[in-house]
Amino acid sequence: IVFFLQQQIEVPQPPHEFKDRLTKTGHRSLSCSLSRSSTDNLSSGTKPHTDEEISPQNKEQKNSKGSNDFCIRSIRQAAFGRREIEMAEQEMPALMMLRKATQGEKPLAGAKIVGCTHITAHTAVLIETLSLLGAQCRWTACNIYSIQNEVAAALAEGGVPVFAWKGESEEDYFWCIDKCVNAEGWEPNLILDDGGDLTHWIYRKYPQLFENIKGIVEESVSGVHRLYQLYKAGKLCSPAINVNESVIKQKFDNFYCCKESVLDGLKRTTDVTLSGKQVVVCGYGEVGKGCCAALKGLGAIVYVTEIDPICALQACMEGLQLARLNDVIKMVDIVITCTGNKNVVTRELLESMKSGCIVCNMGHSNTEIDVASLLTPDLTWRRIRKHVDHIVWPDGKQIVLLAKGRLLNLSCSTVPVYVLCITATTQALALIELFNAPEGRYKQDIYMFPKKLDEYVAVLHLQSYDAHLTELTDEQAKYMGVNKSGPFKPSYYR
Amino acid sequence: IVFFLQQQIEVPQPPHEFKDRLTKTGHRSLSCSLSRSSTDNLSSGTKPHTDEEISPQNKEQKNSKGSNDFCIRSIRQAAFGRREIEMAEQEMPALMMLRKATQGEKPLAGAKIVGCTHITAHTAVLIETLSLLGAQCRWTACNIYSIQNEVAAALAEGGVPVFAWKGESEEDYFWCIDKCVNAEGWEPNLILDDGGDLTHWIYRKYPQLFENIKGIVEESVSGVHRLYQLYKAGKLCSPAINVNESVIKQKFDNFYCCKESVLDGLKRTTDVTLSGKQVVVCGYGEVGKGCCAALKGLGAIVYVTEIDPICALQACMEGLQLARLNDVIKMVDIVITCTGNKNVVTRELLESMKSGCIVCNMGHSNTEIDVASLLTPDLTWRRIRKHVDHIVWPDGKQIVLLAKGRLLNLSCSTVPVYVLCITATTQALALIELFNAPEGRYKQDIYMFPKKLDEYVAVLHLQSYDAHLTELTDEQAKYMGVNKSGPFKPSYYR
Amino acid sequence: IVFFLQQQIEVPQPPHEFKDRLTKTGHRSLSCSLSRSSTDNLSSGTKPHTDEEISPQNKEQKNSKGSNDFCIRSIRQAAFGRREIEMAEQEMPALMMLRKATQGEKPLAGAKIVGCTHITAHTAVLIETLSLLGAQCRWTACNIYSIQNEVAAALAEGGVPVFAWKGESEEDYFWCIDKCVNAEGWEPNLILDDGGDLTHWIYRKYPQLFENIKGIVEESVSGVHRLYQLYKAGKLCSPAINVNESVIKQKFDNFYCCKESVLDGLKRTTDVTLSGKQVVVCGYGEVGKGCCAALKGLGAIVYVTEIDPICALQACMEGLQLARLNDVIKMVDIVITCTGNKNVVTRELLESMKSGCIVCNMGHSNTEIDVASLLTPDLTWRRIRKHVDHIVWPDGKQIVLLAKGRLLNLSCSTVPVYVLCITATTQALALIELFNAPEGRYKQDIYMFPKKLDEYVAVLHLQSYDAHLTELTDEQAKYMGVNKSGPFKPSYYR
Amino acid sequence: IVFFLQQQIEVPQPPHEFKDRLTKTGHRSLSCSLSRSSTDNLSSGTKPHTDEEISPQNKEQKNSKGSNDFCIRSIRQAAFGRREIEMAEQEMPALMMLRKATQGEKPLAGAKIVGCTHITAHTAVLIETLSLLGAQCRWTACNIYSIQNEVAAALAEGGVPVFAWKGESEEDYFWCIDKCVNAEGWEPNLILDDGGDLTHWIYRKYPQLFENIKGIVEESVSGVHRLYQLYKAGKLCSPAINVNESVIKQKFDNFYCCKESVLDGLKRTTDVTLSGKQVVVCGYGEVGKGCCAALKGLGAIVYVTEIDPICALQACMEGLQLARLNDVIKMVDIVITCTGNKNVVTRELLESMKSGCIVCNMGHSNTEIDVASLLTPDLTWRRIRKHVDHIVWPDGKQIVLLAKGRLLNLSCSTVPVYVLCITATTQALALIELFNAPEGRYKQDIYMFPKKLDEYVAVLHLQSYDAHLTELTDEQAKYMGVNKSGPFKPSYYR
Repeated sequence: IVFFLQQQIEVPQPPHEFKDRLTKTGHRSLSCSLSRSSTDNLSSGTKPHTDEEISPQNKEQKNSKGSNDFCIRSIRQAAFGRREIEMAEQEMPALMMLRKATQGEKPLAGAKIVGCTHITAHTAVLIETLSLLGAQCRWTACNIYSIQNEVAAALAEGGVPVFAWKGESEEDYFWCIDKCVNAEGWEPNLILDDGGDLTHWIYRKYPQLFENIKGIVEESVSGVHRLYQLYKAGKLCSPAINVNESVIKQKFDNFYCCKESVLDGLKRTTDVTLSGKQVVVCGYGEVGKGCCAALKGLGAIVYVTEIDPICALQACMEGLQLARLNDVIKMVDIVITCTGNKNVVTRELLESMKSGCIVCNMGHSNTEIDVASLLTPDLTWRRIRKHVDHIVWPDGKQIVLLAKGRLLNLSCSTVPVYVLCITATTQALALIELFNAPEGRYKQDIYMFPKKLDEYVAVLHLQSYDAHLTELTDEQAKYMGVNKSGPFKPSYYR
Repeated sequence: IVFFLQQQIEVPQPPHEFKDRLTKTGHRSLSCSLSRSSTDNLSSGTKPHTDEEISPQNKEQKNSKGSNDFCIRSIRQAAFGRREIEMAEQEMPALMMLRKATQGEKPLAGAKIVGCTHITAHTAVLIETLSLLGAQCRWTACNIYSIQNEVAAALAEGGVPVFAWKGESEEDYFWCIDKCVNAEGWEPNLILDDGGDLTHWIYRKYPQLFENIKGIVEESVSGVHRLYQLYKAGKLCSPAINVNESVIKQKFDNFYCCKESVLDGLKRTTDVTLSGKQVVVCGYGEVGKGCCAALKGLGAIVYVTEIDPICALQACMEGLQLARLNDVIKMVDIVITCTGNKNVVTRELLESMKSGCIVCNMGHSNTEIDVASLLTPDLTWRRIRKHVDHIVWPDGKQIVLLAKGRLLNLSCSTVPVYVLCITATTQALALIELFNAPEGRYKQDIYMFPKKLDEYVAVLHLQSYDAHLTELTDEQAKYMGVNKSGPFKPSYYR
Repeated sequence: IVFFLQQQIEVPQPPHEFKDRLTKTGHRSLSCSLSRSSTDNLSSGTKPHTDEEISPQNKEQKNSKGSNDFCIRSIRQAAFGRREIEMAEQEMPALMMLRKATQGEKPLAGAKIVGCTHITAHTAVLIETLSLLGAQCRWTACNIYSIQNEVAAALAEGGVPVFAWKGESEEDYFWCIDKCVNAEGWEPNLILDDGGDLTHWIYRKYPQLFENIKGIVEESVSGVHRLYQLYKAGKLCSPAINVNESVIKQKFDNFYCCKESVLDGLKRTTDVTLSGKQVVVCGYGEVGKGCCAALKGLGAIVYVTEIDPICALQACMEGLQLARLNDVIKMVDIVITCTGNKNVVTRELLESMKSGCIVCNMGHSNTEIDVASLLTPDLTWRRIRKHVDHIVWPDGKQIVLLAKGRLLNLSCSTVPVYVLCITATTQALALIELFNAPEGRYKQDIYMFPKKLDEYVAVLHLQSYDAHLTELTDEQAKYMGVNKSGPFKPSYYR
Repeated sequence: IVFFLQQQIEVPQPPHEFKDRLTKTGHRSLSCSLSRSSTDNLSSGTKPHTDEEISPQNKEQKNSKGSNDFCIRSIRQAAFGRREIEMAEQEMPALMMLRKATQGEKPLAGAKIVGCTHITAHTAVLIETLSLLGAQCRWTACNIYSIQNEVAAALAEGGVPVFAWKGESEEDYFWCIDKCVNAEGWEPNLILDDGGDLTHWIYRKYPQLFENIKGIVEESVSGVHRLYQLYKAGKLCSPAINVNESVIKQKFDNFYCCKESVLDGLKRTTDVTLSGKQVVVCGYGEVGKGCCAALKGLGAIVYVTEIDPICALQACMEGLQLARLNDVIKMVDIVITCTGNKNVVTRELLESMKSGCIVCNMGHSNTEIDVASLLTPDLTWRRIRKHVDHIVWPDGKQIVLLAKGRLLNLSCSTVPVYVLCITATTQALALIELFNAPEGRYKQDIYMFPKKLDEYVAVLHLQSYDAHLTELTDEQAKYMGVNKSGPFKPSYYR
């Protein structure tokens, strides 16, 4: 694989017009990658909760090999975290395949990766894959909410210096980043970032480290945005690969994450029967398309709202009814927002819903439903279950609000790890590529994920199916004007 | 509604050949009605567990009105149980409609119902509906495992004498039945039974009660079987209505219960991504058909095994691949049994599965997967999560076994309450009919659920949709030879 | 196969209550079996039309072997008919399999079958199968409209005495039946009838033939009805098997015939794009269910009207919107009737439709759309294509009426021969059974199609798929209480 | 609309890198736009065929207004052609809406359009729309095979000078183009081209006309390619708009054209029942995706072959089985090629197919199936129906080859006019835009279809559904950073 990479990569031109896109689509695509296993709930009976009071920073902890180079909630949760990682491994065949594909070669031997991502079972599989391919990793969290303590414990027990715990403060957060970067006798030569906090911490505090850094891999829209700002200011000090815009991520991530999790989120919270229910899905982008596909598959009647006539026409031609929210609000049983916009469900619309209507958000942050408008003295809030509130009107009508309007698929459903594996694999391959690329291939610029690697991510996933790719004959390849081993599509293909 | 019932019911002839059917289909149809809310897990953090050690029989408990005529785990769980009942009410619109449909009349005024069913949120909605329609109810459980303590508490707090707690012993079970029947100054005149234990207890211990009993409503296959045995022995002492064979139950119950719960059960236990997964569903009866519909809806590749060529041809014509289990076992990701048979998945087949294969049972009791065959010293069992075991082979291969081979939809998924409401409504209507039927309409015999009421159950459910029935014109009714208000299908229609 | 039949058949009890059903479902089920290949249109350019003027009764025709024992339009069309039969053979694998299954044995050796069915490519495959299994056949048409002259020619050329031509008069029709029965030196011993005209002709004119007749196989609802009338009058002179009520016919015939032909009928006539079109399907029986399945598969938005609340609830739970016709009539693009009723689409409703609305009937005869009401002077009829009329209102609005309200799937679409093969195979097996049954198995009564043969029809069809039935182990068969070779379902199973 | 256009259009930058794409995707996208109504067959009985022998060039014909400025097969077919156009109007609501949207204004008043397209009912609706909006049109065919004589007659009768007839020679073809351009007293100021033959004829013969030409609208990939060649050579003499790359065309054209026509093509030729049939679709681009969607909707078992791993993974995750053709060829019932490649189905693969296998091409020209390899003496070709050949092997095995391997959807199925309307509307809007654009907006360059018009095409189509777009509030538009009236997506959106 290393050899393969060194020889054949066609370096995509850095698309500098990219920055302009960010303001428009910046927020939504974050939604599904901001993952957190919902198993917290299920496992709450088995976890030891005793050391929760003391701050991890003040605790003395060692793993079984005697190392104390980590800072987590409790190393004692390692066994449970290991089981969660094992569950995730089942659903991340591409990374498991990558471990084998190198056949003993260590394409990351010598790599020292500092990483800042969610700390979940599926990122643990990525981190341990990088380690198995030869890298030394130090890791911290990119979000104070998206940390599974058990997984952090399992990583620490396994020898990865991890600095993160659920419920850490904003201050702790940067303390952790610093501990991760500023290690005695260890200097990173690769950065894996999600959001840019790590990159910017290094840029501000330890700029000298960039001398040795071979590259940055950034996954999030906002992180890429920050890289472009650096670039435009002439301050980008190393090559960077933007994995967010890879074809494979665009084609699979939002659509399948939402398709796989929307029913799950509704069921776990409300046990609602979907067959025959009238559901309105606000927004028919990739998130809305994924939700609609799942809902129709289980027999719901689905209405769609859209502002963009082209997406609207797609909804129509798929047999969905395009409506305005206020025209259907009185009769629907479930309202799901997927617009990436704000105040899509207003108090006025909430007033029009029938009693028992379920309202939730799959789209963007917590802005889509105007939850604040429900905090008036005439309404009573009743907590029914975790993530389920009944908002009761004086006349007895009640609305079922899920996750207080925050993202349903982060709060209340499974994480479709298989889909997340796609992104994790692009990250791993991007790191390998940056580390092994011949001198001069990458400059201090921001690069798209190479098309050939893009296709290779798919190849690694296909192994997990009983799926067989067809190979072109020489004659056919010539006729099509493509190389037999790809890439098969032009660079502009989306 | 009472008037309606008294006038127009056409009493269906008791189908005495029915008994012969039982041995063949007796087991499977129980599967989905044996419901237990999975919210136990989710709520475990909020429930007080402190009084679990003392037997309820030895505890002094009173509800807020001072009554102690009940025996449950803890009256203090009533508030939580009430919230669960409220969630269920949302999904039981037909019963809620029935409460309103009588418009203040009390068709069950004077009725004294002794009931023996699962004690869950959805049966609570039934019990409270019967109470609101005028009945006095006393209740006990039909199964020592299917009891939600919180719901029992809410019922007791609401004034229903309930005798049941989770984890009661076999002995406790009959003690509870006895307490329920043998109340001072109270004699039942209606029986609602599920399985026949209550009916037989009365028959053996208090046969004199049958003098006043206007009828028995029995829901389960086995309970109906026991009634036929009584009938054939000339010992049936009151009319009985068999609601299990109603058209509406046959058309909706197994199919939709399984369609709604199979994905949920898989997701809650394993977080598995279904898109593209290869799944084999063993058996293509109603249970298998429901599973396949849901799995295809989410993009799985589905194989079906069948022994009956007619069902097999149905699978083929729906685009499913009909295969023998041993021909596909090597490549599938998930195995789901729905046959109603035993040893469908043998050790030999388990040996052939690929590592990571998920194995579970939606069909019948715990016989379909030969779990016992996995209890050999060469295999290691590892509990991963609640209801999830990894069985590990010496070479590292592991199988993911769910619920130890017991029913996935009982153990690990939501209960599709909306579907269960169909059965609950037939029970309520059957009780009303027996209580209000003119003298002589029903004899000491076993009756099918009247066709007209069968259709009325559907009418009550249609209200919850934005659904509008068409009415025949006089001319059309005459042309079709049916009454404008139904029944619309002949009695043999299935 | 003969041996198999002689040994193991369990004779089903004649269900004498059956007659009562007829008035209720009598009409609809005929719809899809009344098939006529639409290839007439396509081939009209190639057929010689020259001898159309002379009545076949007055023509001297001989086939290539010199026989003139037939009466058809023109023997010269035989080659074209042969090609149509070959096309049909491709789609009738079960009959082709039956030809082979006997392995040279001739289970119908000695059988003399007089048949009265539609004369189409697929009945030709049945007739030739019977001949290949040893029978001598004489054939006539059961309907003056459902005759493919080319197919009749091919049969005559192949040696089957056929008496039928398209456009024959009512009088000709009975002349043909008589010629078929009343042959010198040939007496039938089996009757295959569709509608009962042949049976009644023999009963009235040649009752003595019944002495040798081993049985009648009747396929249609009305034919069975007439047999019951004979039976009740004590005049049934031979055993009869009712193949209409076979499980396999009930499960497949109407549903799949309509699912396969509704899109085809719409496309061939109007070229309409279905994606996103709003369609109302009137009636949600098997015909309506089949139409809805196909329409949803191609992305139409489907509304359903129903009178029966149980069928209505099925529609709802499948995600279809249940509406009254007058509530949706203004917005729909296509109206399809499948009710079996009359005047479902009235002039008033036609007035409300939007311009361009397509109106057609998949249900029953030509009664569902009140076409007569459109024959008023204010409306202009314009023939656009074959089977397509524009009815134009004074204001320019126009309705697209297909097949003048007659059955779309008979007039304008393909015949799904594969589905028709199911019925044809039941007919063949019923004839074999009657001919080979041991003395005394069948009396002068009307029998249901034996359950075991019912399943065998499915087995023969499964061969054409890459489909593999599972076999029960001895232990499993015992556990289920069924025989390993079937039948697998109880006799009441529908 | 004119005002709207003049004010708000944002001129997209000419994407000069575009040319490079052509060699790779050039061929396939042509397939579905190369439409020809299949009604030729159906109507063959009604058309007068008498004047077919004389060349139209030598015939004296006048329309009813006395004009002879046209050259077509026979003006007498006008009435029939008019009915076909009326059928098409039903399915082209966006163009009909455009006729109304101008509210009496004539945005093309003064426009003189010379057009070269297929001559079919749906292009007739376009041409007549342009005329109604004020343009004077002269028209000719872009392909000698895709001409409906009746439609040409109706256009000529309606006053449009048309020069085209079915079966015209290569030489006639250019004679027609010339007659179209070179009219006395008439000089074109707009060109609508499909393929570039017209544009190049003018460029070579009448270059002086470009002085007055305001722009060229080109629809085909190859025509755009030729424009880029002119541009690079510095010889492009007028602005051009490339409508092929519009978002709306890319999202709808191939996918829905194929989804709507594949079942139709199979049914009209072979009457095949699709339920349960095993089908392999070669290629999972837009064409393959459309075919698969339709086939799955009707219950076929679908295998997919792909060379591109990303498309392959999409197939997998949609529940389709990815296979190599030679691994499944033995068992499939139908083979459909959609690759855009050559020799996908080789003689070797044809040898492996089972008897009765149907083979057809939805993809590209006639190269995908190696039909030539079947022209060997050992095989017998038998013409069964129009477009249906049985290729018979010495052992009796036969393959059913449709349309001799040419495009099934052009030869054997309906044209989904509704989908074609999308392209026709882009053409009309592009012409209006070029004609009305303020001086200087467009230079002698090739432009993408403006994003705003792209969305407007969708708006016009939405009118035909009962579909309601949502409008952004000011606050929301600001939050999203878009204009309330669009465009809603960035220019790179695909």
